[in-house]
Amino acid sequence: MNSDRRIFLRSPYLIFIGDTDDRALAKTGLGIVQWCPELVAGQLRFEGNSLDLGTSDMTIADAVRAGVKSLVIGVAPVGGKIDDNWALVLEDAAAAGLDIVSGLHLRLKEFPGVAAAAKASGAALIDIRNPPANLPIATGKKRTGKRVLMVGTDCAVGKKYTALGLTKSLQERTVKATFRATGQTGIMIAGTGIPIDAVVSDFVAGAAELVSPDNDADHWDVIEGQGSLFNASYAGVSLGLLHGSQPDAIVVCHDPTRETNISCPEMKLPSVADCIEINLTCGRLTNPEISCVGISVNTSGLKKEARGPYLKALSQETGLACVDPLIEGCGEIADVILTRFGGPEHA
Amino acid sequence: MNSDRRIFLRSPYLIFIGDTDDRALAKTGLGIVQWCPELVAGQLRFEGNSLDLGTSDMTIADAVRAGVKSLVIGVAPVGGKIDDNWALVLEDAAAAGLDIVSGLHLRLKEFPGVAAAAKASGAALIDIRNPPANLPIATGKKRTGKRVLMVGTDCAVGKKYTALGLTKSLQERTVKATFRATGQTGIMIAGTGIPIDAVVSDFVAGAAELVSPDNDADHWDVIEGQGSLFNASYAGVSLGLLHGSQPDAIVVCHDPTRETNISCPEMKLPSVADCIEINLTCGRLTNPEISCVGISVNTSGLKKEARGPYLKALSQETGLACVDPLIEGCGEIADVILTRFGGPEHA
Repeated sequence: MNSDRRIFLRSPYLIFIGDTDDRALAKTGLGIVQWCPELVAGQLRFEGNSLDLGTSDMTIADAVRAGVKSLVIGVAPVGGKIDDNWALVLEDAAAAGLDIVSGLHLRLKEFPGVAAAAKASGAALIDIRNPPANLPIATGKKRTGKRVLMVGTDCAVGKKYTALGLTKSLQERTVKATFRATGQTGIMIAGTGIPIDAVVSDFVAGAAELVSPDNDADHWDVIEGQGSLFNASYAGVSLGLLHGSQPDAIVVCHDPTRETNISCPEMKLPSVADCIEINLTCGRLTNPEISCVGISVNTSGLKKEARGPYLKALSQETGLACVDPLIEGCGEIADVILTRFGGPEHA
Repeated sequence: MNSDRRIFLRSPYLIFIGDTDDRALAKTGLGIVQWCPELVAGQLRFEGNSLDLGTSDMTIADAVRAGVKSLVIGVAPVGGKIDDNWALVLEDAAAAGLDIVSGLHLRLKEFPGVAAAAKASGAALIDIRNPPANLPIATGKKRTGKRVLMVGTDCAVGKKYTALGLTKSLQERTVKATFRATGQTGIMIAGTGIPIDAVVSDFVAGAAELVSPDNDADHWDVIEGQGSLFNASYAGVSLGLLHGSQPDAIVVCHDPTRETNISCPEMKLPSVADCIEINLTCGRLTNPEISCVGISVNTSGLKKEARGPYLKALSQETGLACVDPLIEGCGEIADVILTRFGGPEHA
């Protein structure tokens, strides 16, 4: 029994693909292989499926021999529904003692064969969309260690990707840094976390406090953001996460080609400057020293010749490092963090 | 079937007291009798219990004859647990076809006798702490009618009481006004509402949109607030409620003797001015015309001679009507609303 209430996954993983052959439906599996190849032992796909995550093919028997601990469903089923041929594989894996990890909407225990096999073998059925029980109310008490939170001018502007990239850039600079997950795919990549948006609203900030626990004074938690303070559907989630994370630093994520809010198309997106200001104003409640260390821009929608001038102008306007994490990477933002807060050599 | 996803209660009510004789445990029942006597047919208390809500005593048979539709549990049980003598009464009431309404932590269906009786008679078991299923994601779309939301410098500073008082003051001025409930006791008083803090965080703003639906252009919804943008435990709830309510006006509720946050005792309370500013800043996202119409102060902790000068100074500092709703009432705030937005004669 672990008294830590976060979700914990056991690795190595066998990534289940089944008969899904569409890369768009395999974002989770592709993301896991890209961001944490060290957790992945192999993939399990049905005969004739040409989709390849870029890891070894394995049967369940192979996986057991290789010491795999969890079968992770890395794709959404075509049509959204799990057929018998999927359920039988999950049942075999559970019977062999592998935990089954799912981010799908259905509940694993609703499949009687899978539930019975897991019960018999002692394997866990882990639905990542289900937040842990008995989450606490936030206390607002300051924790040890450093934290940087991704925030956004809207949902779906690259917050997870930026957090993963920034974690890597900090680690490359020999800074102790951990990616902290608050969404489903992030939890599979990190192997731990809490799906913040599925938590009952009274407990959101309390759950966020658990996501980045006390740590060494020179350790950085790089926290995956959710929603946006400017998204009228989800801003409450974002504020609870901001307060519970008590970040020392924020990175604003932005898509310059998006004009209106993704879930409220009648609302215009804020400026990056307004987004910084309101996040710092609200964030001071739990960390009066909060500051913004950079801007992560998804420039994929800009014309090639417009990219450089856009980033340069934004940098001049805000006085901050502005990067596309897919092109420049997050190194420049990591350098700002080292300069402002001290690097490992100063610790 | 009603497609409206709010909780709806059927009146008149029989308020159940049982053997609870402590007024502090009877706040719900006392509040219902005080604020909506027209919904209450009577009370049911065990023999020898001297606690009196100030309404007629009734048996379940009396209640059925009087046309009562719901038995509402108006007290918390001494010791927090429901004994057999309570469960038997609830079972009798359910067998007689009365809906059972509870705001307690336990679930009514966990009592097999009560569940069976309700099933046989068709009575509903309504746990007010359970939000309705299938709540929508907020759209941010502007609704018709006017709205005023209670906000606070902290939790438990009189937001429900102020909303009820302001509704009354508006109605006395022949303004069409409806109290809109977002918490348990409020829902029992209003007969409808959604317990916002029990909603999964992704759906908080969507639930808040349902609480104050489209209405006549000159109708005011007076919305019960929850939490505070300055309470690090619950601010996400408050922000979702603010965005979903899209209020034209806010009233700030404040307790001048409280120095630190009720759930985060290491945090100081904000000034009333800061509270106004951040609520208006965040509220403009869904209603750019939002303004503050008054301040409701709980002066019960101030010395008698300090009360008047405090309210006068706060009024001069903010330029707003400042009242203790228990002493001055909310008439002055209602007058500000009429002056600023036009009264029924201008409609």
